[in-house]
Amino acid sequence: MNTFPSKLLENAVSELSKLPGIGRKSALRLALHLLRKDLAEVEAFGNAVIKMRKEILYCKECHNISDSELCSICESPKRDKSTICVVETTRDVMAIENTGQMSGVYHVLGGIISPMEGIGPEDLTIESLITRVKEGEVKEIVLALPTTIEGDTTNFYLFRRLKDHSVKVTTLARGVSIGDELEYTDEVTLGRSILNRTPYDGSFTKK
Amino acid sequence: MNTFPSKLLENAVSELSKLPGIGRKSALRLALHLLRKDLAEVEAFGNAVIKMRKEILYCKECHNISDSELCSICESPKRDKSTICVVETTRDVMAIENTGQMSGVYHVLGGIISPMEGIGPEDLTIESLITRVKEGEVKEIVLALPTTIEGDTTNFYLFRRLKDHSVKVTTLARGVSIGDELEYTDEVTLGRSILNRTPYDGSFTKK
Repeated sequence: MNTFPSKLLENAVSELSKLPGIGRKSALRLALHLLRKDLAEVEAFGNAVIKMRKEILYCKECHNISDSELCSICESPKRDKSTICVVETTRDVMAIENTGQMSGVYHVLGGIISPMEGIGPEDLTIESLITRVKEGEVKEIVLALPTTIEGDTTNFYLFRRLKDHSVKVTTLARGVSIGDELEYTDEVTLGRSILNRTPYDGSFTKK
Repeated sequence: MNTFPSKLLENAVSELSKLPGIGRKSALRLALHLLRKDLAEVEAFGNAVIKMRKEILYCKECHNISDSELCSICESPKRDKSTICVVETTRDVMAIENTGQMSGVYHVLGGIISPMEGIGPEDLTIESLITRVKEGEVKEIVLALPTTIEGDTTNFYLFRRLKDHSVKVTTLARGVSIGDELEYTDEVTLGRSILNRTPYDGSFTKK
């Protein structure tokens, strides 16, 4: 791989291989693929990425990625501003939006507390969340963070910061996945799902 | 995945997911990775790809990717112009160059004959190869094409086109890979390696 026939190719391969999960061999394959495309297509590709990085905004309310000062969710009169769902990243917002089950708004932390990676509360948008709670009509904070030690740490930190404000704090239900066989469910999840068992109301799959 | 918070993000994801082997989920991961990078880094990435597509040349002699009219291999006075190694793509040139065993020059066909994919001899740089043979000092053509039916078809076609010219035609040796266990070598390769057995000269691994 040290014998590139062209500096231009070498440079493109070196840039492509900076992407996560793409090694030198894959990067070369991608570069040769792009070489076979029309110039207009390659320009559309390169410029889409640059334009995104240059022009994208973050919602001043919830810090989610946005094309305007206020994102479409925060702007919508249909959303319930009294419920804020706290997530780590934009991808979590997209995942929850896909379920169609969250009628409230979001707050994107931009990460979770992780002493191992040197991420403390001050690196996240936590102060802004507290300000939103102080300012207004917020009744419930739904913590929808990863089920990891870092997620639990962040949940606990937020819980302590929020407990002096008159706001209900909830987390996503933990339990057996729908469609899962009990024998393949991990012990901790199965154990918790027994402790937190819920009244059966005769419905097939609960909303 | 239908609920992108931003058109700019959606557009970048859609462009990234056109790359081979990259689906929508990976493309989103790559786009969010690029969003976390400095603008200068993202511009370097996008522009490297566009610049490569816009400015790259193909050697007028061997059709390999090049930064100039004549590639560095064809230009080099150290290379033996009487031996031409015929390959499918630039990647094969790079692979062979890495071995350091080819002192001759190359001819990049740009593909192989494949009736299934509608690729005929006229789609490849075969006429240019014949011209090179006619014009000059070429003594040997080394066929280094894939060991597939298409590769064999192309080998045979080239052999027939070249047989009226006083040029030796060879192919890469087929045999047991160095480091391979015999019991795991496929039957065809093992059978051929017996038919084409070579005199043992006492050396450890032959150059």
